[in-house]
Amino acid sequence: MTPGFTAAPATGLHLIADLAGCDGLCDVALIEEALREAAEAAHVHVLSVHLHPFGPEQGVTGVALLAESHISIHSWPEEGLAAIDIFVCGPLADAEAALAVICARLGGTLRHVQAIPRLGARTRATLAP
Amino acid sequence: MTPGFTAAPATGLHLIADLAGCDGLCDVALIEEALREAAEAAHVHVLSVHLHPFGPEQGVTGVALLAESHISIHSWPEEGLAAIDIFVCGPLADAEAALAVICARLGGTLRHVQAIPRLGARTRATLAP
Repeated sequence: MTPGFTAAPATGLHLIADLAGCDGLCDVALIEEALREAAEAAHVHVLSVHLHPFGPEQGVTGVALLAESHISIHSWPEEGLAAIDIFVCGPLADAEAALAVICARLGGTLRHVQAIPRLGARTRATLAP
Repeated sequence: MTPGFTAAPATGLHLIADLAGCDGLCDVALIEEALREAAEAAHVHVLSVHLHPFGPEQGVTGVALLAESHISIHSWPEEGLAAIDIFVCGPLADAEAALAVICARLGGTLRHVQAIPRLGARTRATLAP
């Protein structure tokens, strides 16, 4: 277990990113490397990686479970698209660095990106009643 | 493999939900049940479920990988908080039904919820240049 995780308050940053023009979206080994390198770049700790290839020349769905939450990918190679989530907690976690690694590894460009504060990182002003 | 997944275009709906006042956030079996029942309610197909308990009376991090993307949870029992993501693709997937199941199973209330169209479900008007 990674020290300090459960002692940390529940605050997080969630990057939602849709990528276009990607390569290697059927390549399970490449995607696992991208997830692990992204975690390293973000200074977060991988607990486990789980990948499901849908078949030859088809997409991959997968997740790296982190001590600090998760990084996930779902890919559509026939469209060159990938949906990436980088949800990290703790003051040292660098979600943007993780996203840069994934974009570089897949050769994709950002079609949409959105940063969402989670839990205690969300300001009181934006809380639902 | 679930028929039709890779034939479907890359469109999805991602529900981001932060829950407060939850019970059972250390209970791995309860959380697995909640994930599987949520998937059933959403009419999506579970490929695998992966859960990591951080220790007795500590949080759980986990994911249900779906043929239609994923449902994840990260819990902070000491604060009664859970961060839920329900990312589902396809016209039949009902993310709201999944969220209702998770709220009911954990006894939590929604502190924040946000629905994000992913990939092809995002209108052209909102695409980054």
